[in-house]
Amino acid sequence: MLEKLDLTKSLSKAEYKEKMAELTPKLGKLQRECREYGIPVMIAFEGYGASGKGVQIGELIKALDPRGFEVYAVKNETEEERMHPFMWRFWTKMPAKGRVAIYDSSWYRKVLIDRFDKKTKKSKLGDAYRSICSFEEQLTSDGMVIIKIFLAIDKKEQKKRFDKLMESKETAWRVSEGDLKRNKEFEKYQEVNEEMLTRTDAEYAPWNIVEAVDRRFATAKIYAIVAQILAKKVEEARKKAGKKKDGNADSGNTAERMAELKDAGNTRQESGLEQDKKMKESILSKADLSLTYTKEEYKARLAKLQKKMEKLHGELYRRRIPVILGFEGWDAGGKGGAIKRLTEKMDPRGFVVHPTASPNDIEKAHHYLWRFWVDMPKAGHVTIFDRTWYGRVMVERIEGFCSRQEWQRAYREINDMEKDLADAGAIVLKFWMQIDKDEQAKRFSARQENPEKQWKITDEDWRNREKWDQYEEAVDEMLIRTSTPYAPWIVVEGNCKYYARIKVLETVVNAIEKRLEKDAEKNKK
Amino acid sequence: MLEKLDLTKSLSKAEYKEKMAELTPKLGKLQRECREYGIPVMIAFEGYGASGKGVQIGELIKALDPRGFEVYAVKNETEEERMHPFMWRFWTKMPAKGRVAIYDSSWYRKVLIDRFDKKTKKSKLGDAYRSICSFEEQLTSDGMVIIKIFLAIDKKEQKKRFDKLMESKETAWRVSEGDLKRNKEFEKYQEVNEEMLTRTDAEYAPWNIVEAVDRRFATAKIYAIVAQILAKKVEEARKKAGKKKDGNADSGNTAERMAELKDAGNTRQESGLEQDKKMKESILSKADLSLTYTKEEYKARLAKLQKKMEKLHGELYRRRIPVILGFEGWDAGGKGGAIKRLTEKMDPRGFVVHPTASPNDIEKAHHYLWRFWVDMPKAGHVTIFDRTWYGRVMVERIEGFCSRQEWQRAYREINDMEKDLADAGAIVLKFWMQIDKDEQAKRFSARQENPEKQWKITDEDWRNREKWDQYEEAVDEMLIRTSTPYAPWIVVEGNCKYYARIKVLETVVNAIEKRLEKDAEKNKK
Repeated sequence: MLEKLDLTKSLSKAEYKEKMAELTPKLGKLQRECREYGIPVMIAFEGYGASGKGVQIGELIKALDPRGFEVYAVKNETEEERMHPFMWRFWTKMPAKGRVAIYDSSWYRKVLIDRFDKKTKKSKLGDAYRSICSFEEQLTSDGMVIIKIFLAIDKKEQKKRFDKLMESKETAWRVSEGDLKRNKEFEKYQEVNEEMLTRTDAEYAPWNIVEAVDRRFATAKIYAIVAQILAKKVEEARKKAGKKKDGNADSGNTAERMAELKDAGNTRQESGLEQDKKMKESILSKADLSLTYTKEEYKARLAKLQKKMEKLHGELYRRRIPVILGFEGWDAGGKGGAIKRLTEKMDPRGFVVHPTASPNDIEKAHHYLWRFWVDMPKAGHVTIFDRTWYGRVMVERIEGFCSRQEWQRAYREINDMEKDLADAGAIVLKFWMQIDKDEQAKRFSARQENPEKQWKITDEDWRNREKWDQYEEAVDEMLIRTSTPYAPWIVVEGNCKYYARIKVLETVVNAIEKRLEKDAEKNKK
Repeated sequence: MLEKLDLTKSLSKAEYKEKMAELTPKLGKLQRECREYGIPVMIAFEGYGASGKGVQIGELIKALDPRGFEVYAVKNETEEERMHPFMWRFWTKMPAKGRVAIYDSSWYRKVLIDRFDKKTKKSKLGDAYRSICSFEEQLTSDGMVIIKIFLAIDKKEQKKRFDKLMESKETAWRVSEGDLKRNKEFEKYQEVNEEMLTRTDAEYAPWNIVEAVDRRFATAKIYAIVAQILAKKVEEARKKAGKKKDGNADSGNTAERMAELKDAGNTRQESGLEQDKKMKESILSKADLSLTYTKEEYKARLAKLQKKMEKLHGELYRRRIPVILGFEGWDAGGKGGAIKRLTEKMDPRGFVVHPTASPNDIEKAHHYLWRFWVDMPKAGHVTIFDRTWYGRVMVERIEGFCSRQEWQRAYREINDMEKDLADAGAIVLKFWMQIDKDEQAKRFSARQENPEKQWKITDEDWRNREKWDQYEEAVDEMLIRTSTPYAPWIVVEGNCKYYARIKVLETVVNAIEKRLEKDAEKNKK
């Protein structure tokens, strides 16, 4: 969930001012409404050292009524806390109904710093995760709102910030040896964080990742996230209460108050979403679609890579490594062509391509993951899925084929499935074939004009094209929530077909080579 | 969940015949209704070797339409299965909507036999549990009914069965070396099973434990369990469908069919419950309330144990071991007296007794476990709770202070909390003070007649007494579901106060001594 972030995101002073002018009173109002409806809220800040947790908490509370919240810094363990079970300190710092508690670092310590420092034993890691999930699940099922915010910066930025802090005596103490060690081994620590994010990204308490290199951007995004989540909860509470409450003594008559609340609800929810859209991770827009290969470059590379692939395929078979490759992408994004080039020189007895259509009756009579599980490769075989289980969080989400709850739950279910596959020794890669809207139009037209390719284009393709923005939003969320160290997403810049095909082949070849090396090293030991 | 079982339970031939005559057609009908409503059902059989899984599955399917179910024996792994991820074999053996699949051993292998044989590494255990829970949670949230049955026999019975099998050449092959090893180390293997049962006893797929020494009893109980669960699901499906369906071509007119279904629904549910009540674990009735000490015995033992306790209390403090003791029991069961004798000679700076009353307003504004977490002892201290967090599954359940879903979820929440405490190094013991109804009446009367003790008896006590049977049922379920190796329940035979007080003291002393020994051994290494 971290690897794909665009950390260059920023806001100008003017943009920032405008956003904050809108969001600040909104947050204040939401806090009052949470109090009114008795909704307790926990906001947990995690993130790399010097990513600005303290600063951002300082910014966030500016919008809140100080009589309604507490801030807890979890870093400095008290004597009292050390003498109690780890979770005790959070139970004793729990907001009552209608109050807000903010945590500067939270209940994740054991699976982050302590794990990195090997203070948490490997055999105890499962217990630590169980404890965290149990904590969050039981609180949220009791009505608690848990907002989890992760502040992300990169290695270079972190180093810069540490250096700056160390320049002055007054701030140098804030950089510990542990901080410097984690900066030096940033990639390794990032993996620890990645695992934490994936294993605890539950529908009842999802993670919100904030690009925190630009302070203004981070502040505004945090405001927007908190506002959006609270607005949703307040709306739910209001619906549950049946009729709008008239609890505020300072409001006018009931009818007026009801109209006001209703309006506020509508405005809030819409602009919450809008805010989110403006600021959310736009991975797809990052793809540099100008990347190309000439025909000659393409041919040379293709021949070389296909030869390598042929050899590696045999190696996979001998070493009994299963490989699972999923292809998703825009219609006419070039999935078919890439799969063709990938498999052209492979032994047909060792791979299979499964095209995924709408589920048939038998498939509909099972869990949505069933048909994919059934088709998973055995050891030493390669299975390629042309469209995959990610339909759940794309077409099924957008067309309403499953409920909101179902597709939200699916991120975790899919991560769990891919973890099972990876734990069983499989290489799992997922490709998103990215083209822009113009390129798609060109390809659609070309297909319609070519009698041999007309079958490839249907009315549905045109209908889907109309929902481009909705798909883009769903795909962005999917890429963030389901790109894991054990099953990464690869966004393939696809405007140039040559480039795309080579990138796919190259990625697969590299992943297999890396895996074989790793296995070889293990055997040496 | 295993330790407290009464394995002597049995049914006479006549009783068995009667029950089966009632349950067999009922099960057949429920299977047809599951088909009608498209409910898929998985029935997993786990349990000790030679506990009769095969036999019981054979009995169960006699009631079922063979066109509607499959049986899978999971023991013998095929070549094909070995070459796929572990969970693959269950995904490929999954019933479609309306069908039943029965598993002779199931997806628990990795946390049972494989773990015992150290084939599952300790560091991989967390992953294995995650995988199991994820599997069950995602299927059940998609509408699957998962019925998990655990067949329990004891070490002696198992040995007897193995010996019998080995007498004849024709059956000797059925007893493996692994079986014999697990029999030899029965206690150790039982602990592995206990942990598995606790960690996977979820509200979406709870465990059903069946005393399997008497084959007839086990068969009837399995029938009753399956019938009860399916009846509930069919009822839910029927309500969801809005109106009763009229899908069966062979039934008469709609109104008739509706009436029939409605009747069947009512009968089924009621007698399902009745069956369950007759056959379920009655731990409380097992307590031998005739156990007594004379005054002299009592005094001698008391003096000795209190002296020991005094010494051990100091030791606990030095070694920084926290101790949590929970007391529950019938009104006038002797909690107060036992606590008094236990603490009499302890250093008052090192322990505290928390009486638990109905929650006050602040407590009500928090999660029900909050007030108990807040009061948990720090390292080296002893905290005694007079009434505990188990109110959730007793008074709150019975009086309807929380929803059915809430108290059902609470078993897991409580187990998780106690696991957190034990993982942090605490000794956790829970005492149930057991007296019979006559003894309670005697004590109530005595209190009313004694002016100094009148305050101890209220109208509420009399009201609770009227709900004795309801409480007995709730307590039985609580003892089974929340007695764990890390936080066991101790049923204290309390008709003789002398006996009860000594048993409590003795149990606490033994637990502390055992723990100190274990720690000493660890330090030696």
